Amino acid sequence: MSTPFELDVQKVVAAIKSCLPPDRDFVGLHEPYFTGNEWNYVKECLDSGWVSSIGQYVEKFEEMLAEFTGVKRAVAVVNGTAALHVCLKLAGVEQGDEVLIPALTFIATANAVVYCGAIPHFVDSEEKTLGMDPCKLGHYLSDIAEIRGGSCFNRITGRRMKAVVPMHTFGHPVDLEPLLDVCQRFHLELVEDAAESLGSFYKGRHTGNWGRMSALSFNGNKVITTGGGGAILTNDESLGKLAKHLTTTAKVPHKWEFYHDQIGYNYRLPNLNAALGCAQLEQLPAFLEKKRALALRYREVFQNISGVRWFEEPGFARSNYWLNALLLDKDHVHERDVLLEISNVQGIMTRPAWTLMHKLPMFKDCPAMDLASAESLETRLINIPSSVFLGGTYGQT
Amino acid sequence: MSTPFELDVQKVVAAIKSCLPPDRDFVGLHEPYFTGNEWNYVKECLDSGWVSSIGQYVEKFEEMLAEFTGVKRAVAVVNGTAALHVCLKLAGVEQGDEVLIPALTFIATANAVVYCGAIPHFVDSEEKTLGMDPCKLGHYLSDIAEIRGGSCFNRITGRRMKAVVPMHTFGHPVDLEPLLDVCQRFHLELVEDAAESLGSFYKGRHTGNWGRMSALSFNGNKVITTGGGGAILTNDESLGKLAKHLTTTAKVPHKWEFYHDQIGYNYRLPNLNAALGCAQLEQLPAFLEKKRALALRYREVFQNISGVRWFEEPGFARSNYWLNALLLDKDHVHERDVLLEISNVQGIMTRPAWTLMHKLPMFKDCPAMDLASAESLETRLINIPSSVFLGGTYGQT
Ligand SMILES: Cc1ncc(COP(=O)(O)O)c(C=O)c1O
Ligand SMILES: Cc1ncc(COP(=O)(O)O)c(C=O)c1O
Repeated sequence: MSTPFELDVQKVVAAIKSCLPPDRDFVGLHEPYFTGNEWNYVKECLDSGWVSSIGQYVEKFEEMLAEFTGVKRAVAVVNGTAALHVCLKLAGVEQGDEVLIPALTFIATANAVVYCGAIPHFVDSEEKTLGMDPCKLGHYLSDIAEIRGGSCFNRITGRRMKAVVPMHTFGHPVDLEPLLDVCQRFHLELVEDAAESLGSFYKGRHTGNWGRMSALSFNGNKVITTGGGGAILTNDESLGKLAKHLTTTAKVPHKWEFYHDQIGYNYRLPNLNAALGCAQLEQLPAFLEKKRALALRYREVFQNISGVRWFEEPGFARSNYWLNALLLDKDHVHERDVLLEISNVQGIMTRPAWTLMHKLPMFKDCPAMDLASAESLETRLINIPSSVFLGGTYGQT
Repeated sequence: MSTPFELDVQKVVAAIKSCLPPDRDFVGLHEPYFTGNEWNYVKECLDSGWVSSIGQYVEKFEEMLAEFTGVKRAVAVVNGTAALHVCLKLAGVEQGDEVLIPALTFIATANAVVYCGAIPHFVDSEEKTLGMDPCKLGHYLSDIAEIRGGSCFNRITGRRMKAVVPMHTFGHPVDLEPLLDVCQRFHLELVEDAAESLGSFYKGRHTGNWGRMSALSFNGNKVITTGGGGAILTNDESLGKLAKHLTTTAKVPHKWEFYHDQIGYNYRLPNLNAALGCAQLEQLPAFLEKKRALALRYREVFQNISGVRWFEEPGFARSNYWLNALLLDKDHVHERDVLLEISNVQGIMTRPAWTLMHKLPMFKDCPAMDLASAESLETRLINIPSSVFLGGTYGQT
């Protein structure tokens, strides 16, 4: 018998199940969904032979992305990690700099900082957005930061702090306006890790369209997929051009000469993968509707269950609900693993938050502010099945 | 009128043309060729939804690669550049080390060194193989190298020299045995850049199967393609395991936890691209036969043309003839650009060698030995159309 103070794990699992198709042995967290022109476009690539660096789909995909997100320039790349790496480079992050990133994020955010020879500096999250807490960051920087010659320095480590990289957790936008404000006050570049937030808007403008540059991911578990893929978004046309140059080995165009004018990367997205992306992007509005329909179903069933809360988009945001999340009450963190165990055994894929970055061996000596809220969220978050196809109608709706 | 001492550029172009299909407005340098199961396997990916990190093709592709090349372990990655990067990391290349690479190579070889925080050190090539000159390298190292505590140091720069990266130019194997000998004498790791040499053998054993690790590329212009892709080859099972770990974000396997034990990379090859790779690999022996048939045709027609020589595989090698190459006599370097111009205008794609690495602005201060032979080759090399399909029978054979 469950009292209002207890968490009935079976009841939670039953509630999740009631939102899912009844006829499936296994429901993944986020499965790809190919119901449009995927086949036609991919076949066109194979028939023409243009699967690699030549072909029309990369450019088309970039144009479609720019249009949907409202940025001036999108550059398709091989994955979201590569996109982040180049965003940071072009934001001016250099060897020995510090970059402020959330402790609660996927490993790629921190790795991209390291690829630049820079040091991640961990920031707390707020429960309202699951993302970076702008207010706490502002107070913290007032304490430790010092502006010298137009740059921001960490008075404790002596290192330059160059950029802030908020991440829109599970697709939910962080509170961007106050964050931009902090960035301006402290001469820091804003680079958005929008890997999870394609289709998410903050105050009517698309995420990834607020800072200097931002990164998207089209990994297999994202809202749309290209197999593997990502994109760099920017409103600065010259940075966009440079991003294209850097991600295509910095080769200077010439009829036949091979001349590269700086250290570049082979980060280009193959035409084959871009073809898939074009077909997926065409369906994005429909996908987002389906994802919202599923989210609303979850909202309804979790309204009457105590001890756990379904995470709802903040008022200023329209979220893509990439991954629906449950938040256990603070008294019930010990039931997290039971819930994960029971649901996964029953073929309903669920997972906890990522291990916080500062707890990983390679980042344990990196600078960090007080991370109380991220620490709490880490113990209480559970993601539940969120695939596009689950938003269809199949009985129980 | 051409005398024996002149190069008749029109005659050279006519000779190339006589080996090509008569009915084509444009013949590329190396076009993809999809005539097997490409279709079926890619469709299977789309139908199942497994286009990304999950799916059977990556593992199958790795097994097929290991079998064909005779190595113990192949790890599929996102491209050849990524493969080289990880090979160097796993060969122990660290920040501030020097890595010996040919000056005559594609930019990726040098970039991969820089990604490790190391410094390229340029080595001359020999005309016999178009690749690293083992004899000259040996003499050079006798001059400048010093062994201390089991490691090799450059007495001039004071930096450790960690590895040697020969590259099998246009598919032609370098002289590996004397090179291995030099590596052993000077405590240097051998890492082969075998990006261009899938299907090329040195003394009966596959290239990429001689050093500690090696890198393959499946870019759109290679013998087989995955759109974009590459692989790491090694006979050291534990290094192979580590390569897989590092290229998949260094995530420690767990039912649901996200724990990464070191800095890793998102270098995995998507299942969609691996599917294409499996279909292509099935046809590799047939592709190699076709490429050899074309090469023999070129050999024949160039036997009677003076001032230029068709490059033939060295006696110890069986080459994949990835890109057929012409070598102008030393007196005729000034006609190189005329030849490039005339052939390209006529829709026959030709191109010169890469700009030598030490001439690029970002590498101009890197250490280098005397590069006389590479300098000469750079002015005299021209690649001519070499696609698999050109080896078919279509009239003139
Ligand atoms: C927050 C975040 N950042 C970066 C990435 C990296 O994207 P990718 O996996 O495409 O490299 C991901 C997705 O995996 C992510 O969730
Ligand atoms: C010699 C050499 N090394 C490395 C590479 C890099 O391979 P990729 O283009 O797949 O990154 C290539 C091919 O482009 C190459 O020709």
